[in-house]
Amino acid sequence: MIIVKTISELQTARSGLPTPVGLVPTMGFLHAGHLSLVEQARAECKSVVVSIFVNPTQFAPTEDLESYPRDIDRDLALIETAGADLVWMPTPDIMYPPDFQTWVTVDAVTQPLEGAQRLEHFRGVTTIVAKLFNGVQPSKAYFGQKDAQQAVVIQQMAHDLNFQIEIEICPIIRESDGLALSSRNSYLNSDQRQAALILSQTLMTAKSAYESGESDAEAFRQLMLKTIATEPLAKCQYVSIADHLTLNELESVDQDGLFSMAVYIGKTRLIDNYLLRNGTWQTGRRLPQGFEKS
Amino acid sequence: MIIVKTISELQTARSGLPTPVGLVPTMGFLHAGHLSLVEQARAECKSVVVSIFVNPTQFAPTEDLESYPRDIDRDLALIETAGADLVWMPTPDIMYPPDFQTWVTVDAVTQPLEGAQRLEHFRGVTTIVAKLFNGVQPSKAYFGQKDAQQAVVIQQMAHDLNFQIEIEICPIIRESDGLALSSRNSYLNSDQRQAALILSQTLMTAKSAYESGESDAEAFRQLMLKTIATEPLAKCQYVSIADHLTLNELESVDQDGLFSMAVYIGKTRLIDNYLLRNGTWQTGRRLPQGFEKS
Repeated sequence: MIIVKTISELQTARSGLPTPVGLVPTMGFLHAGHLSLVEQARAECKSVVVSIFVNPTQFAPTEDLESYPRDIDRDLALIETAGADLVWMPTPDIMYPPDFQTWVTVDAVTQPLEGAQRLEHFRGVTTIVAKLFNGVQPSKAYFGQKDAQQAVVIQQMAHDLNFQIEIEICPIIRESDGLALSSRNSYLNSDQRQAALILSQTLMTAKSAYESGESDAEAFRQLMLKTIATEPLAKCQYVSIADHLTLNELESVDQDGLFSMAVYIGKTRLIDNYLLRNGTWQTGRRLPQGFEKS
Repeated sequence: MIIVKTISELQTARSGLPTPVGLVPTMGFLHAGHLSLVEQARAECKSVVVSIFVNPTQFAPTEDLESYPRDIDRDLALIETAGADLVWMPTPDIMYPPDFQTWVTVDAVTQPLEGAQRLEHFRGVTTIVAKLFNGVQPSKAYFGQKDAQQAVVIQQMAHDLNFQIEIEICPIIRESDGLALSSRNSYLNSDQRQAALILSQTLMTAKSAYESGESDAEAFRQLMLKTIATEPLAKCQYVSIADHLTLNELESVDQDGLFSMAVYIGKTRLIDNYLLRNGTWQTGRRLPQGFEKS
C-alpha cells in the first residue's frame, strides 16, 4: 500500500494504478462504516484510493475541529487490511495554501437541515470533495448514507459540474443495538452511549407508524419529537421528513421520503436517518453483537 | 471531425480520442485569435477538442447575450480546417438544467478590473470552465492573453481545485494595425473601428514611457488616461497597472506588471493589455496586412 502526502506524489502514484479507480474520502478515525465503503470499492474497482483529511473548512469556529478524534496508525492498519492500494493524507497547508481562494458551492439542497445549523459546512465539503475528485480522478467515489444530506449535495455537485464519476451511496452501518457508527460516538460516556439509542429508536418508531398506515408528515415529526423527548439526556435540534432529492419538507409521505434528525446527547451532536425509497425502507445494516464497540 | 451536443455523446467520442487531449474553450464566432489556440493545441496534443458555447451565466442582464455574434457554420468550417478532432457544442439547457445549483467562485483575483465592472461575470466563467474541464478531461487547456484577468482567474481556479490540467495562455493576436482581435469588434462601424486603435496605441505609449525609464504606476495611469482622452469616440472605463498574479494595483513598476484597460467605443466595450514579465514585454502578435478584417 502506497502512502502519499503531496499532490505531485499523488500524481506519480495514481498514474501507476490500474483503472477503474475507486475513491473513499474520509476524515480518518475509521470505523466499520468507512471500511464497508472500502470493501465496496474493492469489489467494484481495480484500484482503491482512500483519502484521510480532517477538512478544516467544513468546521465552524465553534465546532470540534481541534478535538476531532485522530488515530492515523490505527487508520492505516485498518485500510491496509481492507485492501486499499493508495492512501492520500495531505496536510491542511497542501490543501489550502496561503493564496487559496476558490470555492464550490451548492445552493438549494445545502440550505435546510445540516446546512441550516452548520453555516458554510457544505461549502467546505463540496470544495474539498471537488479537490479530492480532481486529485485522484476516480471512476467511482463512495460515501455513506449516514450523512444523508451530504450524499444529496455531492450527487448534485457531481451532476452540475459534469464530474465523470459515479457517486455510490452505501448503507449506514449500525452497532448491534442500532446506534449508527460515527467517529463522534467516541465522545460519549457510557450513560450517553446508552441514551444515544434514542436516535435509531425514534426512526424505528416512525417506520412502524408508516407501516401502520400513517402518511401525514407533521404527524411523523410530532411522533419523532415526542419519542426523543422521552430520553432525558437528549436534546433535539431538528427532525425532518423531506423529499429525498430536493430536501424540501414533505406534507405527506407516500412511497419516498428522507426521515432524518440531529440530536445532542450532552455536548455531542449526532445525526441519523432512515430513507424510504419506492415504499422500501433503507435503514442500514447492523454489525453482529460484540463486533464493534463505540 | 466529430460534432457532439450532449454529455453522453461527448463521453462516447472522448473515450475514443488518443491522449493527451487539448481543449480550446470558445464562445464561437471564431477569429484568428481562437484559431491560434487550436493551432497550438494541435502542435502539442494528440487530440484537439474545441467547445463552442455562448455561456449565459457570464453575461449580466444588461449585457449582450442576445446579440452576441454567432455563425456556427463558419465556425465549424474554420475549426475543421485548423485540424480539431472533436467539437462540443452543448445547448444552454444541457449545461444548465432546471435544477442546476452549483457554482465555482474565485475570490480575490475576481474582484478588481473586469470583476468590478461585470458583477458575477467570473462566477459564470469559472463555473462553465470547470464543467468543460470535467466533461472533456483534457491534459491541457488553451486560453488567450486577450482576457488577461480571465487567464489569471482560471489558473488560480485550476490550482486551487487540483485540476490536473496544464493551463496554456497564448499571445494576443492583433490586426496589422494593432487592434486586438475580438468577436465584439464586429459591432464597430468604420469610424469606431478606426477609433478602436486608441487601445493598442495607449499601451504602446505606456511601453515607450517604461523604456524611457518611467516606473511610477500612477504616472503610467495618467499617461494612459490622457492618451485615451485624445480619441473623441472613446470613453475609458478603467486603466490598470497591476501585479500579474494577484491583480493588486502596483505603486511602481519594476520588471513585472499587467497594463490593461477597458474602453467603450460607442456602445461597444473593448479590452486590451500588455504584459510585462521579467522585464520583457508580451504585446501579442500582429497578423500580416490584409489577412483579416474585423
